[in-house]
Parts: sequence; structure tokens; C-alpha cells
Amino acid sequence: MPVLVMKFGGTSVATLDRIRRAAKRVGVEVAKGYDVIVIVSAMSGKTNELVGWVNETSPMYDAREYDAVVSSGENVTAGLMALTLQEMDVPARSWQGWQVPVKTTSAHSSARIEDIPPANIMTKFGEGMRVAVVAGFQGVSPEGRITTLGRGGSDTTAVAFAAAFDAERCDIYTDVDGVYTTDPRVSAKARKLDKIAFEEMLELASLGAKVLQTRSVELAMRYKVKLRVLSSFEEQSDEAGTLVCAEEEIMESNVVSGIAFSRDEAKMTLVSVADRPGIAAAIFTALSEGGVNVDMIVQNISEEGRTDMTWSCPVDQIKRAEAAIDAAKKSGELNFDDLIADTDVAKVSVVGIGMRSHTGVAAKMFQVLSNEGVNIKVITTSEIKISVLIDRKYMELAVQALHDAFELDKAA
Amino acid sequence: MPVLVMKFGGTSVATLDRIRRAAKRVGVEVAKGYDVIVIVSAMSGKTNELVGWVNETSPMYDAREYDAVVSSGENVTAGLMALTLQEMDVPARSWQGWQVPVKTTSAHSSARIEDIPPANIMTKFGEGMRVAVVAGFQGVSPEGRITTLGRGGSDTTAVAFAAAFDAERCDIYTDVDGVYTTDPRVSAKARKLDKIAFEEMLELASLGAKVLQTRSVELAMRYKVKLRVLSSFEEQSDEAGTLVCAEEEIMESNVVSGIAFSRDEAKMTLVSVADRPGIAAAIFTALSEGGVNVDMIVQNISEEGRTDMTWSCPVDQIKRAEAAIDAAKKSGELNFDDLIADTDVAKVSVVGIGMRSHTGVAAKMFQVLSNEGVNIKVITTSEIKISVLIDRKYMELAVQALHDAFELDKAA
Repeated sequence: MPVLVMKFGGTSVATLDRIRRAAKRVGVEVAKGYDVIVIVSAMSGKTNELVGWVNETSPMYDAREYDAVVSSGENVTAGLMALTLQEMDVPARSWQGWQVPVKTTSAHSSARIEDIPPANIMTKFGEGMRVAVVAGFQGVSPEGRITTLGRGGSDTTAVAFAAAFDAERCDIYTDVDGVYTTDPRVSAKARKLDKIAFEEMLELASLGAKVLQTRSVELAMRYKVKLRVLSSFEEQSDEAGTLVCAEEEIMESNVVSGIAFSRDEAKMTLVSVADRPGIAAAIFTALSEGGVNVDMIVQNISEEGRTDMTWSCPVDQIKRAEAAIDAAKKSGELNFDDLIADTDVAKVSVVGIGMRSHTGVAAKMFQVLSNEGVNIKVITTSEIKISVLIDRKYMELAVQALHDAFELDKAA
Repeated sequence: MPVLVMKFGGTSVATLDRIRRAAKRVGVEVAKGYDVIVIVSAMSGKTNELVGWVNETSPMYDAREYDAVVSSGENVTAGLMALTLQEMDVPARSWQGWQVPVKTTSAHSSARIEDIPPANIMTKFGEGMRVAVVAGFQGVSPEGRITTLGRGGSDTTAVAFAAAFDAERCDIYTDVDGVYTTDPRVSAKARKLDKIAFEEMLELASLGAKVLQTRSVELAMRYKVKLRVLSSFEEQSDEAGTLVCAEEEIMESNVVSGIAFSRDEAKMTLVSVADRPGIAAAIFTALSEGGVNVDMIVQNISEEGRTDMTWSCPVDQIKRAEAAIDAAKKSGELNFDDLIADTDVAKVSVVGIGMRSHTGVAAKMFQVLSNEGVNIKVITTSEIKISVLIDRKYMELAVQALHDAFELDKAA
């Protein structure tokens, strides 16, 4: 029988009633003839509670113990989901990561899945079991200890199972009904997309649209897993939600697919750095080793052997960045006048695979922002995305103006 | 290094503060030179929450899923305890049942421990780890699924580890400071015992004194594990609490060691049963298969081929008992006039290994109760115990009178 993977996030399994509702959706797919692998998150709030306890117990915690504690939330949901399905006369059982086994690296709290041997679960499917409920977000290291994949890891678990079991599709049930051209809370004209390309979804995810975890989209793209994002709170048809798929499967699309934004950005500038070969490497190695996720980077033209280096990073990493740069200065690796942090910035990006074949998207974007009197502080581009850093107070205005200008409220 | 097992119950690890306090006690033993195995329960209330969810989801639950869900509480405490010890610079790590592994039977929800290979933990002790924190109450079946040992199973886990690791002692930390001659809430004269024999503890435990789980005492007796019961809420000396040990280690003791009682008893009488060979077997097989824990049994003298059969059982099992007897009647196995349940009874027992060599204990007990005007409804005796069923309203009076009469407030 064909295999379908269905993943339910924390809000979709937050209560016993919601678990029942999710189980009914699973029952519908079983009735269609699928063998189903259900990936569950912890009931919403549970993981935060566990993480809170760990942090309070040991601020510089041993990640192996963190994983042992935090993974327990998913185990609870998996068992409850299996019991709920059994109550509906659907043959089901739960699996914890180590039981499958979901083999991961030993990088505790941010492990990567290395292998999911399908034999154990396939044997049970062969014996008449119809649903394998798997605790998401967790696995087991070569040393036999429990690992977790990091926040949002349940999406990654789901895609990895879809790849390992050659599933027909991987349905991600969440609290939104699909992927939108932008956040409907910012633009009332936001439109749900029926389809979106992996590459676009990847940019949207990495730019802060929190529908799918970036790693899960990367994995889906690599293994050509058809991903569908849909709401667990609405009656579903086969065409519900948004299908994330290969570019070839999208016949028509707008040049720009969506406008993404991120509120929690900071712009940092290292003023008057002594410019020499390897200086960029020195700065960004220091930041990387300090745990700072640098996003955009701009270097000004060098004058008289000095230059300014600007980058953006999440606003809550400023202190780490300052500490890293300070340490590099003390060790003599860096020589500069000042380090300035601007915390009142936001990032706005237009994303679309259509940009590859259409010119003028950047020019149009800058013109729209200029018409609205929005000053652009930093620009970066990729093949299918243009991002700008602007004053945070203009963020909503910029998103709405760009959404209108690229006519995203209208389907192609 | 000698191994010590320390077990902390749910109230002893109910909050992060209490876990810290327990960890300090562990640190004291590590400083004395012990390698310590710590067995932890779930934070108090957690197991009840999980059991509640399972029951609400599926009243006739699959015990394998029950175990997968309910065992998660202990995993959380184990990780938090390991982190707390690490914060105190004590080398520690957590172990879940399957990681040790704690090999059990497949009798889910009431599994029995079959083997605990010490190799994995001993290797870590050899490498400098000083504390192995083990999630109590759980194990793994031959099929690789998670099992639990039933309520109170963490005591059993602790004793089994003490036996498997040839531990010097097994300290059970709980919310009382030892074993008393009777419940101090019922008799203000109750006295803490310094030592008590395994056999006596077994009778007290099975009679409702909830300090130690019966199975753990049986196991300790079989493997000659020195058990100590003590409070996790008081400063401890080496002589704190009560030592449960072999009879030979107790030099002097009173004839009677303690007065146990159980409030939640019911007396059931099957009136005018057709008496024939095998009738008792028919009745008690039906009750046993119906999940009724029958305690005392009395059969009246048979008259004209009919007899009355009386037994006691926990009061909350009356409905089950009625259903089981009803089914046996319908199937033609039983023929009787009436089934009467008396729910206003309590059981009071005097326990002491001294009874073996002293006569007259029963006579004295009956005399004391008679002097107080307490009517005895059912009597059963064993080598070291005499139990009576009386009206519940006289229970406190009976316990106090017996405690006085056997001079339990005075040490031998």
C-alpha cells in the first residue's frame, strides 16, 4: 500500500480533543488505502515547560541531558495518538526515536538525521498495522543516547520519513491553512498560494515566514518529497493548503511569489577597520565562533587603508557579537575605531523564481520604497530574492506597498 | 568503590528546589567515597496527569501505549537530577530503562524485572562517573517496547539495582522519616522503629502502611539487600530512618512491632451458596479473573448443603466483584441467594516476628477489642500477623487501644 506521512504540530495536538480531531484526519487517509506514518510534536507549551526547567537547573546545560528531558513531550503525544486511533479501530502503535531507530549524529540538541531504516515499521505494516505514530524531533546517537534535532525538528522528522519510506506525500498540519504571499496580519490583501517552489519556500522560511522549518524544506528539495502545508482546524479536501514542490510542477506563477519580512534584526557596523587581506575572514570567523548568525554583509569602499564593515544579525545576538569582536580586538586580530549597533531595523524581502527570467524586479522594488519615502540601509540579493534593511517603523508600509506593486493579490 | 543506591520518591523531587536538595544528599554520599546509583520517580502529580490523559483517551487502553506515555515522567526527573549534580561538579548522567537496560517481562503496566546487566553503568563508573541517575518504574520488554512495573515500581527498581550491583545499602528517601509502630496521625504515641525485619515490613506494607511497596520488600528479602527508609526533608545522620533488614540483625524487639490498618476495605458475603467440592475455587477464580484482589476469606459451616462465603476486598472493587459473581451465576457455575456488600468496615492488624515464640498475642488482641466494645467480624492470621475486620467507626479507637496494650510506645 502507498505510504503517506502526516505531521501534526504542537497546536494541532494541544489537547485530547485536538488529538482526536487529528486522528480523524488520519482515519480518512487510512480509509483511502494509505499506510500512514504520523509524526507528532509535543502538546503545545510542554516543550517550553521542559526547556524552562532545564535552563533553571543548569544554564550551561549538558546537551545530552537536555535532549533526554526535552524529548519526553513527543513520547507522550505519540502514545496518546496511538491510543486514540486504536479507539477508532485503526490498528496503530507508537514508536519513539530509538525504537525505529531514527539514527542521528551525536550533535545533541541540533542533531542531523543520518538514516531511518524502514524495516521495523514496514514489517508491522505487512502484519496489518495501518498507522505508525512516531515521536518527532528526536533520534538516537551512535552512542545510544537520545538526541533532538533542534526547534522545529518535527518537520524535519516528517520529511526524512517521507524520503526513507518513499511516501506519496508529506502533509504538514499546522495552525495556518497554507503559505501566503505575505503575512495576512500585515497585509489584508495577502493571498494563499496553491503551489510554491522549494527554492521559494526555502527563502521565505529562512526570511522568517514560520510555516515550515528551513531544514525540512532543504531535505524535501533534495529528496523530491512533495510537501503540503495545511490547517488541522478546517475540513480538508485533497486540494487544501499549499503544495511545496519542484519548480517544474508549477505551470504559471507570478514573477514575485511573496513578500517576507523579519522584525527582529539588528545592523552592526565596525567603523574604520584596518583593511588588509583576510580582515573579513577574521571578523566573520570571530562572529561565527561566538555563535552569531550573520545574515547580510556589506563592505564600504576602502579609504586610506581603513574600511567600514556592516552586517545584520538577530537583535538578541548583539551582546554575543560585541563580546566576540571585543575578544578579537584584545587578541590583536582586529583594529578598529568603533562598533555601532542599530537595533531599530527590519528586513523586507521579495522572493520569486520568476526573477531568474525577468529583469527589473530590483529596480521596481527600490522605486516603490522610494515613492513611499523609505530609506534603504543595506541591500543583498540572491538569484530568487532581494532583501533590504529599513527602519523598523516603515516595515508594514513597505510590505503593503510591495504587495500591491507586484500584484500579489491576483493569481498569475 | 562501594556502590550505594539512593531512591527519591515523587514528593522528594516535586520541584527543582527539592531536586537540588536531593542532589545535595547524593553529593554527601559521593564525598564519602561511594559510587551512587540514584533512582528517581516522576515529579509528584505528573504520573497522575499522564494516567488521567490515557484513561480519558482510551478507558480500555493498550497497556503498551500506557507504558510509553506514563514512563515519560521519570525520564524528565532523571535528566534534571543529572543536570543538577553536574552543576554541583559531581560527574553524573541519566539512564532511561532501555539504556541500562532494565530487562523486564512483557507484562505491560505490571512487568517484572528479569535482569539488570551492570556492565554499561560499571564501565562509566570506571571512567570516573560518580552518579548514575536511573529513571525508576520502567524497563524494556524482549520485544524492545517500554514497560512499567506498576505503581510504586520505583522502590522495586531501587532494590533490583542494589541487588544487581551488590550495593552496600539501598536508601529509600520519602516524605516520612521512617517506619512507625503505627500511623502517627491515628496514635500520637506512635514510635519510629530503628530496625524492622523484612517479614514484618512485608506484612505492614501489604496491610496498607504505604512506606514501601510490597514487591520491593520481597525482593530485598530474597537478595538480602539492606533497605533504609528515611526522610528527604530532614538533615540526615548515618543512623537516621528505619533499617529494614534480616531478622538476625535485630537483637531485641517487642513481641509486636506494629499496628497496621486499612480504611478502604469492604466485606462481601455470598449468602446460601450451594456447597459442593470446588465451589470455593469457582468463586475465587471468577473474582480473580474479574481483577478483584481478595484479601481475607471465611467460610461458614455448611448446613443442608448450603453455606455462606465471606471475603474482603478493596472497597473500590465492589462493582467488579459484583459483575464477576453475576457472570458466574449466569453461566451456571454458581447458585446462591444473595450477594451482600458491607462497605463500612476497616481492617486492623498486629504484626510482629515475636509472635512465633510468644503465645497469647491473639487472645490479648481480642480481649483488648472486647474491652473497648469493638465487635470482630472476620479474623485471619498468619505466622507473624493477626488481622481483624471491624466497623470502620471503631478503627482509630482499636488502633490506639492495641498500641497501648502492646506497649509499642516503649522500645524493647
